[in-house]
Amino acid sequence: MAWLTAAAAPCCQQYPDVFCNRIYFGVPFRQPPVCMNSSRPYIIRALYEWIVDNGCTPYLLVDANLEEVQVPTEYVENGKIVLNVSPSAVRELSFGNEDISFSARFGGTSRVLYFPVTAVLAVYARENGKGMMFSDDDGMQPPPEPAPASPSTKKPSLKVVK
Amino acid sequence: MAWLTAAAAPCCQQYPDVFCNRIYFGVPFRQPPVCMNSSRPYIIRALYEWIVDNGCTPYLLVDANLEEVQVPTEYVENGKIVLNVSPSAVRELSFGNEDISFSARFGGTSRVLYFPVTAVLAVYARENGKGMMFSDDDGMQPPPEPAPASPSTKKPSLKVVK
Repeated sequence: MAWLTAAAAPCCQQYPDVFCNRIYFGVPFRQPPVCMNSSRPYIIRALYEWIVDNGCTPYLLVDANLEEVQVPTEYVENGKIVLNVSPSAVRELSFGNEDISFSARFGGTSRVLYFPVTAVLAVYARENGKGMMFSDDDGMQPPPEPAPASPSTKKPSLKVVK
Repeated sequence: MAWLTAAAAPCCQQYPDVFCNRIYFGVPFRQPPVCMNSSRPYIIRALYEWIVDNGCTPYLLVDANLEEVQVPTEYVENGKIVLNVSPSAVRELSFGNEDISFSARFGGTSRVLYFPVTAVLAVYARENGKGMMFSDDDGMQPPPEPAPASPSTKKPSLKVVK
């Protein structure tokens, strides 16, 4: 049986052998895996909202070693910095899909901070430490196996939250 | 040294021996751990947005055995049902902190579905299975140890996303 093959998107070319088989208009169609951006910024925003809704203080643990990171270096310890990003502690907070920025006071002086989302190692509540730590490779793993078209029989590559 | 002790909130009384020590107005103060609601509804909304933003189809895996769950029983397999909750497949979708509801067509007939957030076992993209699976106990674990007041020295009870 002949298969139609879609041209792989650039970010999919690292997994050229992974395809899911679908049928469009009666024609079998080999589709490359759908590439998605990182879920990390979405999770960060969700946990920030969760922590604030619970009246707690959201903290970000940031890797200060990345070149693009702009944070007060005098508060960096072991290459990392813990930042209080509660609404009362920061101004002009922007949680983008690519980067995070805000201004905050350090030692009485207002500073503008900027860092890419990839520099965020964890988001958690100061009061009890509840939150989430991120690994380096979230959001871009290939699917573990070619996915069948039927949703009820497929085995999703799900991640466990305990 | 005398300690002031805050009355534990009802949901904290299951962990009566876990306190974090703080100082208010110069007086040491033993505070019960801050109780938070489940992060699951926040994560579900975040992953839903992430999947839709990437042009994929959000699927929910729902435990149909819970008493409050109202789903088409004829589509339940092994006590679970997979639901397509893409914007084009449902109407009046409501992702609350306590429950999820929407209407959708099954076999040509519009049905209203309702289930508590606790019934959601997973949210993932149909196209590649990327998403997250939930355990039964997320969101209400006690902190692993009494948390010190200093944020830079505490050890958060973080969860790993790989």
